[in-house]
Amino acid sequence: MPGLPSGTEASPPLTSDNSWLDQVRWDASGLVPAIAQDAASGRVLMVAWMNREALAETAATRRAVYWSRSRGKLWRKGEESGHSQQVLDIRLDCDGDVVLLAVEQAGHIACHTGRQSCFFSRLEAGRWVAVDPVLKDPELIYR
Amino acid sequence: MPGLPSGTEASPPLTSDNSWLDQVRWDASGLVPAIAQDAASGRVLMVAWMNREALAETAATRRAVYWSRSRGKLWRKGEESGHSQQVLDIRLDCDGDVVLLAVEQAGHIACHTGRQSCFFSRLEAGRWVAVDPVLKDPELIYR
Repeated sequence: MPGLPSGTEASPPLTSDNSWLDQVRWDASGLVPAIAQDAASGRVLMVAWMNREALAETAATRRAVYWSRSRGKLWRKGEESGHSQQVLDIRLDCDGDVVLLAVEQAGHIACHTGRQSCFFSRLEAGRWVAVDPVLKDPELIYR
Repeated sequence: MPGLPSGTEASPPLTSDNSWLDQVRWDASGLVPAIAQDAASGRVLMVAWMNREALAETAATRRAVYWSRSRGKLWRKGEESGHSQQVLDIRLDCDGDVVLLAVEQAGHIACHTGRQSCFFSRLEAGRWVAVDPVLKDPELIYR
């Protein structure tokens, strides 16, 4: 698109106008937390991080892409587990530093432990208690 | 409680056994992000930060208490706006670094803009669009 600065992006722009990406308040590491919420059940499934490229690709492909801080690379959710996330809705909060995705979760499993949600530990009488069932053995997910 | 180390806490413990607080993976600043989700509607209302004291007080009082990074002090949600949050459920994610609260939101307004949720901006055709109504004029909230 004419008028866009050239050569200033680490990654090629995936849309013709990236001003919406400039409106995100990236942290000092260039990241924002992204919440994935199950569009059907409303369950909060997980929180991961996105960099600019991850969010741009997520918006363009409607598949959730995160930035893996531990591996230092893009993490296309489901690339190993098969538990990809189709993105129905992308929202930004009022101060622009958290992203919220409404997703259809493949396999109904978002967590690496084989549970629907990563938020399976509930505080009960001063202890964290795992209250949600394991739906699939992680050893069968990550073969 | 016998056996607990003394003099190592910045704040007095609010429960007799704080090991559940030790299981939270506080970041380098001693904070974790906390998501507040409306228990009735399932809407994700807001994300704020908690330090150890904020989470301890939240658990003890069942009222959401955050740590205001901008003001550098505890923020008892609703102390100015009246829009407090009664906490029905407290969860921790699988790697221990995000807290999820299920809340009853007073006034059905969590956002300082007078909207139900801080996530009122939706990505539509490459733009963030405010899609949720202002339920109450912020000038009437913060008088």
